[in-house]
Amino acid sequence: MRANDRQPHEKREIEIVPHYIKHPEGSVLISFGDTKVICSASVEDRVPPFLRGKGQGWITAEYAMLPRATSQRNIRESSKGKVAGRTMEIQRLIGRALRSVVDLEKLGEKTIWVDCDVIQADGGTRTAAITGAFTAVGLAVEEMLKKEKIKENPLTGFLAAVSVGMTNEGKAILDLDYQEDSTADVDMNVVMKSGGRLVEVQGTGEEATFSRAELNQMLDMAETGINELFAAQKEVLGNFGESLAESERKEETTNAT
Amino acid sequence: MRANDRQPHEKREIEIVPHYIKHPEGSVLISFGDTKVICSASVEDRVPPFLRGKGQGWITAEYAMLPRATSQRNIRESSKGKVAGRTMEIQRLIGRALRSVVDLEKLGEKTIWVDCDVIQADGGTRTAAITGAFTAVGLAVEEMLKKEKIKENPLTGFLAAVSVGMTNEGKAILDLDYQEDSTADVDMNVVMKSGGRLVEVQGTGEEATFSRAELNQMLDMAETGINELFAAQKEVLGNFGESLAESERKEETTNAT
Amino acid sequence: MRANDRQPHEKREIEIVPHYIKHPEGSVLISFGDTKVICSASVEDRVPPFLRGKGQGWITAEYAMLPRATSQRNIRESSKGKVAGRTMEIQRLIGRALRSVVDLEKLGEKTIWVDCDVIQADGGTRTAAITGAFTAVGLAVEEMLKKEKIKENPLTGFLAAVSVGMTNEGKAILDLDYQEDSTADVDMNVVMKSGGRLVEVQGTGEEATFSRAELNQMLDMAETGINELFAAQKEVLGNFGESLAESERKEETTNAT
Amino acid sequence: MRANDRQPHEKREIEIVPHYIKHPEGSVLISFGDTKVICSASVEDRVPPFLRGKGQGWITAEYAMLPRATSQRNIRESSKGKVAGRTMEIQRLIGRALRSVVDLEKLGEKTIWVDCDVIQADGGTRTAAITGAFTAVGLAVEEMLKKEKIKENPLTGFLAAVSVGMTNEGKAILDLDYQEDSTADVDMNVVMKSGGRLVEVQGTGEEATFSRAELNQMLDMAETGINELFAAQKEVLGNFGESLAESERKEETTNAT
Amino acid sequence: MRANDRQPHEKREIEIVPHYIKHPEGSVLISFGDTKVICSASVEDRVPPFLRGKGQGWITAEYAMLPRATSQRNIRESSKGKVAGRTMEIQRLIGRALRSVVDLEKLGEKTIWVDCDVIQADGGTRTAAITGAFTAVGLAVEEMLKKEKIKENPLTGFLAAVSVGMTNEGKAILDLDYQEDSTADVDMNVVMKSGGRLVEVQGTGEEATFSRAELNQMLDMAETGINELFAAQKEVLGNFGESLAESERKEETTNAT
Amino acid sequence: MRANDRQPHEKREIEIVPHYIKHPEGSVLISFGDTKVICSASVEDRVPPFLRGKGQGWITAEYAMLPRATSQRNIRESSKGKVAGRTMEIQRLIGRALRSVVDLEKLGEKTIWVDCDVIQADGGTRTAAITGAFTAVGLAVEEMLKKEKIKENPLTGFLAAVSVGMTNEGKAILDLDYQEDSTADVDMNVVMKSGGRLVEVQGTGEEATFSRAELNQMLDMAETGINELFAAQKEVLGNFGESLAESERKEETTNAT
Repeated sequence: MRANDRQPHEKREIEIVPHYIKHPEGSVLISFGDTKVICSASVEDRVPPFLRGKGQGWITAEYAMLPRATSQRNIRESSKGKVAGRTMEIQRLIGRALRSVVDLEKLGEKTIWVDCDVIQADGGTRTAAITGAFTAVGLAVEEMLKKEKIKENPLTGFLAAVSVGMTNEGKAILDLDYQEDSTADVDMNVVMKSGGRLVEVQGTGEEATFSRAELNQMLDMAETGINELFAAQKEVLGNFGESLAESERKEETTNAT
Repeated sequence: MRANDRQPHEKREIEIVPHYIKHPEGSVLISFGDTKVICSASVEDRVPPFLRGKGQGWITAEYAMLPRATSQRNIRESSKGKVAGRTMEIQRLIGRALRSVVDLEKLGEKTIWVDCDVIQADGGTRTAAITGAFTAVGLAVEEMLKKEKIKENPLTGFLAAVSVGMTNEGKAILDLDYQEDSTADVDMNVVMKSGGRLVEVQGTGEEATFSRAELNQMLDMAETGINELFAAQKEVLGNFGESLAESERKEETTNAT
Repeated sequence: MRANDRQPHEKREIEIVPHYIKHPEGSVLISFGDTKVICSASVEDRVPPFLRGKGQGWITAEYAMLPRATSQRNIRESSKGKVAGRTMEIQRLIGRALRSVVDLEKLGEKTIWVDCDVIQADGGTRTAAITGAFTAVGLAVEEMLKKEKIKENPLTGFLAAVSVGMTNEGKAILDLDYQEDSTADVDMNVVMKSGGRLVEVQGTGEEATFSRAELNQMLDMAETGINELFAAQKEVLGNFGESLAESERKEETTNAT
Repeated sequence: MRANDRQPHEKREIEIVPHYIKHPEGSVLISFGDTKVICSASVEDRVPPFLRGKGQGWITAEYAMLPRATSQRNIRESSKGKVAGRTMEIQRLIGRALRSVVDLEKLGEKTIWVDCDVIQADGGTRTAAITGAFTAVGLAVEEMLKKEKIKENPLTGFLAAVSVGMTNEGKAILDLDYQEDSTADVDMNVVMKSGGRLVEVQGTGEEATFSRAELNQMLDMAETGINELFAAQKEVLGNFGESLAESERKEETTNAT
Repeated sequence: MRANDRQPHEKREIEIVPHYIKHPEGSVLISFGDTKVICSASVEDRVPPFLRGKGQGWITAEYAMLPRATSQRNIRESSKGKVAGRTMEIQRLIGRALRSVVDLEKLGEKTIWVDCDVIQADGGTRTAAITGAFTAVGLAVEEMLKKEKIKENPLTGFLAAVSVGMTNEGKAILDLDYQEDSTADVDMNVVMKSGGRLVEVQGTGEEATFSRAELNQMLDMAETGINELFAAQKEVLGNFGESLAESERKEETTNAT
Repeated sequence: MRANDRQPHEKREIEIVPHYIKHPEGSVLISFGDTKVICSASVEDRVPPFLRGKGQGWITAEYAMLPRATSQRNIRESSKGKVAGRTMEIQRLIGRALRSVVDLEKLGEKTIWVDCDVIQADGGTRTAAITGAFTAVGLAVEEMLKKEKIKENPLTGFLAAVSVGMTNEGKAILDLDYQEDSTADVDMNVVMKSGGRLVEVQGTGEEATFSRAELNQMLDMAETGINELFAAQKEVLGNFGESLAESERKEETTNAT
């Protein structure tokens, strides 16, 4: 049993509050246990310079933490005048992952700015952010379809992420909280698309290394966890979620034929 | 009647959720209508260099908005690499106002970092931030007293703020929302301490000017509004709020004698 | 009597040297006692992006101090790579105040850049800067009219500012020098337009608070002081100053009818 | 056959020139085909603040490219005044990977600064950098042992990295050059320690996704490639390389018992 | 004859106003014709880290221009967040030149910060700055001797600078104004110490080149001009100037023996 | 004899490796003894804003050092977020010097970006950079002529630079290494164009001063050294070098007539 009364393969309680703030086209407050992230998707009717006139859209993400989201207060990046390496790494990951489930040509010459602001941190902020970010994008896409700003749904599937790790006793565990993350030997973030394909695998063992067998054990566990996240996202997205799942099933059947 | 069905002297609905995030010594989510600010008070056991060894503490504040707190998305100050003038002006105001109700010697060699992060903006973010910041500091002080980190309550009274303005039809109104703020001729922020004394008066008429009579009319209206905010703060602070009100009454009686 | 042999309501010696530097369209060296500020007004034939094509002009201000304008040398903001909060607050105030006496449509698609550089500081630098900045703008407007770069005078009145405060003995005083400013309980900057209307009131009591009665006492004193500044500005502006005063009198008469 | 006449599992020509520049304690010029990186290891007799007094050392890495290392000239990060997200991500990866093969306590209170400067880029700069960085650290450690600055070898094994990918025709390929990298569906960087354990796995499919089977195929290919890199490193490190391999064999035998 | 009615070897009118601002230990306003620079020397009782505990002092200089010192307004370096290359080059030159006439050991563990702020520019700002900076340092040294902050005069001679150039008609001219500087083929700044020795020679011909003969012609002209500047400095420094000249004469006599 | 077995007028061994890196239009690795600099010339088909539409090109240079090019590791300028004064001074010098031998109108609306990256430093990096930069530009020009991107050779001669100095024993020496540079009394950099004309002379004596006679002695020595550098450049540039020398001879003959 883990300190927090969880089984090794058990995620923390997940909650996704849709339309959490009123201005963005899509927004959620997502909680993975005590980790809470406000994710918003803002639609802008133009694309960055490198894409102008190419008939396609863009999705980019930014990530930040409130200074006291963590147990010790952190200095604001705006006060330091620069964005930390960790922040850049995470926001690049979120943007890249989102782009893997969006048909940028169907989006048209629009940019979706995704903002993931951690208001309370307890481990797994980047996986909560990816999972919440996809949901916010889903809500924004639903809104754009409703207002006829786009004609077709550019989403090609659901996207979610979870962390897995190896404890220093050699046990695989799912969805690490801050305490577990601090003591784990190996930490891995897995991003998947609905349908079971991998989008991003980032495994790292700073003080330790890991075997291929351990890698596989962690990937199995991640897959189970992520499927539960897909279910939560589908529920929050309601009819739009249903239709996305449906169109994905059709696509798979076609491919399988 | 105002567009939002309010009387000229009527504030928006005020809500203060205490202990909104878990890590800070004190925190609230404060709402002035659709304006929502997370205020947290973080206690650090040291003081800035200019105060070292002087036997007194310090309170300082930082203010920020999530990029999509507003109707148009704003570029993050961390991405721009510098803090905007407006932000600096507001955070200097919040810090200065808080220091007017704290006996820094009773605080001892500690710093209270106050963070005001606007998650949704609809006018009056700086007055909501001041009012929430005081409440978060109150909760942090209560906690410090409970844990015996300080011996005496360093707070000398309640602190709250509200905006007032003159419409372009020459009518004074209280607690302007974004729409009203954009069209008002005069905009004034008033910060008061319980007991009726002024802490800060900032009145400005960028495209217009104002008379002494109008100034007085706005100050009267602000005073009424702020008294209601003091009541809300006292309720949230519970027993600690009661005892603060009590000690302030005693102080006044003593002074009056 | 004040340490510097002044009565409570007595300003320091005021001097305004017009055309102090040769390149700007308008410039002055203004002294409030030992506080000396070079104010220049530079006219540029275009407006910032947010105003393009709107048929109106813009006025903006920048403020700085030479490193050794003060009793201790300050590090240059260019070396620190960022502008301090205090500087931003002051330059925003100067720009806002100037815009309250200029008809930006009559200015046409031009920008007036006002630079206020403090070469010697002894308290009241922001009020001296505002008073000098208006005079420099007046000289630049006179020059533009003479050269037929604009057809009509866009100025709608004179603009000046002064500081007032409450000493720690509860006495109101006018035009505080550095020593007085450091020990005053309350510090207030008042900006007025000729004709007696308020443009900006910024009163603050960092370690103290103030009553409505004290506020009124300070405002009375400020008004008297500012009227003397208007007289000094009018003299420096010569015929142009006369005609500005004249047109303002006519406007008032019209309004009063 | 690949455009460059390589088999899918064939690396480019690898060259490691030791002692390439004279000042650093260890340095190499490493080439993976046309990708050329100068790696240097600089030893400093102190540790960063967060490690002071803890009796252990630190290894950190920085990565940069000459402006014209690439086919289009890039603006220098020093001119832009900030380090790009991609750069930060890579240098964090290099540092983390190196720390997985160093016993920081045996290093003692020293910091090894590793600089990886790409002088010519043709894909795979981060894997060449990691492989070269380890070799430079090896040379620096050899030097420190020779000069008796440390008593025991803190290295616990060899470290190397290679890229693998899936072409858009679904074929796994090893050590992608720039052209291949631009068109691949999936791009993965694998860092391993001698002995066959994984240190870091970063697989990403920006426009595509990948299956578990493809992941395994790529990992198999990477392992073979990395074993060849270990051989090249051992040769360059000469006797020191031999003894490192020897001590690692002993360690494994002990563990296996 | 030059456009400004000067002979080729004729300097502009030189004026040095001592004690121009009140806070610095030494200050002047120096004019070379329409070029006007406020130079101040601020004494601080400590040295930069690299000199601590070495029993010697330091002199460093900073240079800036007011935004409208020039015919077109320049953006402030503080707004741009960085110091321009030209500024750095000039301030490094001023500091280096001053250090050549100061015995840093006699100065003791003090730093003299020299600030040269150009309030009006018309060519030759760096030479005016050097000449004024030396005078301000002279006044500060005199003050330190008077207040017994140092025991011995650390100055070893006078220091002044002037510009010389070759017109595009091949004529050498002294002390170029802005118009002449813009059209000259060769521009040279010469810094000398009293007694006729060179401190710094910086000759450059961006669009042209120059011969050894022309170099010598310019150096001759510079030497004559600088001797006149030494006389002006000596006069401003009064008795202290006399005694400095005297001690220098003795030194030379000793050396000559 | 100098510590490094050189005669006072003897340069270190010079080596110029052409086409050192593959992407730039021209590149060399130049060595002045242990000082090694990669110089590259990148051609861009546009000019900076201030030259647009003027029918001429531009040449600009950037200079940097690898962190461990020097005996102590330096912090990267990208990490510090700003470019040091010394760097700016050097890159401005390189650009200015190159522009003196290029007919910018013949270059047409193109920019040549020259990058000088010091990979190993042992004194004289700026003179090696200038000499190498010219050679890289020569190779780029040759390439542009071959590809018919320009019609005429815009180069008007060769350009090279060398350092000279006065030891603290009053002896002139050529091409100082780091050790000599640290102890020399006077340090001078001389840039010349083939044909014997001076382009830039920068002589400085931070702790010492120098006489006109010493200046002349150093210039004589520099001239001899630079002529040897011209020979090395001509050899590396092959036929193109020959034809440049030839056209320069013709030009001189014409001028002499």
